[in-house]
Amino acid sequence: MPPENWIAVDWGTSNLRLWRMSGDTVTEAMTSDKGMASLAPDEFEPHLLSLIGDPGPGPLPVLVCGMAGARQGWAEAPYLSVPTKPPAIGRALRPLVADDRLDVRILPGLSQAAPADVMRGEETQVAGFMATEPRFDGIICLPGTHSKWVHVSAGEVVSFRTFMTGELFALLSTASVLRHSIGTGWDGDAFLSAVSDAMGRPAQVAADLFTLRAAHLLHGQSTDSARARLSGLLIGMELAAARPYWLGQEVVILGAETLSQSYLSALRAQSATCRTAPVEDITLRGLIAAWKDAT
Amino acid sequence: MPPENWIAVDWGTSNLRLWRMSGDTVTEAMTSDKGMASLAPDEFEPHLLSLIGDPGPGPLPVLVCGMAGARQGWAEAPYLSVPTKPPAIGRALRPLVADDRLDVRILPGLSQAAPADVMRGEETQVAGFMATEPRFDGIICLPGTHSKWVHVSAGEVVSFRTFMTGELFALLSTASVLRHSIGTGWDGDAFLSAVSDAMGRPAQVAADLFTLRAAHLLHGQSTDSARARLSGLLIGMELAAARPYWLGQEVVILGAETLSQSYLSALRAQSATCRTAPVEDITLRGLIAAWKDAT
Repeated sequence: MPPENWIAVDWGTSNLRLWRMSGDTVTEAMTSDKGMASLAPDEFEPHLLSLIGDPGPGPLPVLVCGMAGARQGWAEAPYLSVPTKPPAIGRALRPLVADDRLDVRILPGLSQAAPADVMRGEETQVAGFMATEPRFDGIICLPGTHSKWVHVSAGEVVSFRTFMTGELFALLSTASVLRHSIGTGWDGDAFLSAVSDAMGRPAQVAADLFTLRAAHLLHGQSTDSARARLSGLLIGMELAAARPYWLGQEVVILGAETLSQSYLSALRAQSATCRTAPVEDITLRGLIAAWKDAT
Repeated sequence: MPPENWIAVDWGTSNLRLWRMSGDTVTEAMTSDKGMASLAPDEFEPHLLSLIGDPGPGPLPVLVCGMAGARQGWAEAPYLSVPTKPPAIGRALRPLVADDRLDVRILPGLSQAAPADVMRGEETQVAGFMATEPRFDGIICLPGTHSKWVHVSAGEVVSFRTFMTGELFALLSTASVLRHSIGTGWDGDAFLSAVSDAMGRPAQVAADLFTLRAAHLLHGQSTDSARARLSGLLIGMELAAARPYWLGQEVVILGAETLSQSYLSALRAQSATCRTAPVEDITLRGLIAAWKDAT
């Protein structure tokens, strides 16, 4: 039997979420802006203690997922290679700690040799989804800064692919010449039209990007349409490249509500079989699954 | 006969170059970091005067090309639509000036209605090339932050297309997650291999980008190779989209030496007919051509 009281932590690049657990039950939830990027390796343990307070007589188990396990994080938890089950606590790294009342375990991310790819954190979201749908066989799409397409079969992650779609959108809409022509609103028709353009002629995306600027200057294209078209061009290119993942497969989209709806509408326009699934606390569900599974 | 003494100015976004002219001859050359982006509309004339000093009894003709003619510049010089000859002084805008010893003319840029596209400044480089090769019929490629492909025939710019290749390279190599895996060196084989990958499967560029990061983490891919591959992926995608421009045409590349050599090697690998041409003072040659041609 695992101990009754433990700590679950989703330690990402820019922030962390922490749950004080009693078995499967959350007794307290906390967040902090001290993500991996803002901490030196020897600052993780003191920050953890500042959040949880007195750990009691110990040892208090702490299970961590995410970028805390990266090379530049708390301690490097080497990747597990696919195909593999999502990492459970038995595969976690134990960093050295100064306070021996803490028993810290950091879950590894996943790697793929060819095409070379990595994830840290998303594997625990995948585990959370698989905990709710253990028989799922298909594709999990995790849209975001670095969108992931994950092929799951027979309880294992078979393969995956990463797209920098969200990061490209952010850079182009805020730091490139397009920023002058990109608004904050939306235009669903412009989005779907751009998805279709990019899927049909992906190379043209290289030219279509500057067209967003020129169409604003010459034809007064609305900045809301331009924002939707930029998103559609980038997501359309992602869908064109990810076609071997979604074509003829069941796709579940796990992500923030608005973005997930965009992916859903784009995939449905391609007649793909897809749905969204609730993502609230999905990482926590993955941590609980990893905690209970000692394999 | 045009007046003997005049001023030629290439006023770009981030800096300007100014030449004091006697007919076709440069008598003094100056540069300044007061580009369009750092000046309010009413600051252009004082800055010009600070560079040229006493204009004499006047009127002293000043011929300007580039972003000074943009909406957010000194005064908006409306675009000429293609097909058209490169703009000559007769098509230039005369901004209001406080000092009537100055006779300022700002050359317009070029626009294309569909696909929507614009240029400001490159049209004068094109004019400079056409002044040296008046019979040229083919494609001028101007690689850079916003690469331009320009179809020239019978002395006119017929059509053109802009690619944000240089800006994407700068953003991805310095401001994205890839910055950790991108060095400062070069690997010609990796470049050509990436060009070939992107031209063969342009949609896959969306996935190949993150592979640069993962291949560094997993396989120790050198940061020099990664830099060359990033450049190759983006230029390859540009070449795939620009194929209607270069296929079966004579291509002249006008740009900075190192970048031009990259484009040349990529195009030659596609068996395209291409060469580079000297670009030193090409904008000045274009300004002189615009000055002498009153049409």
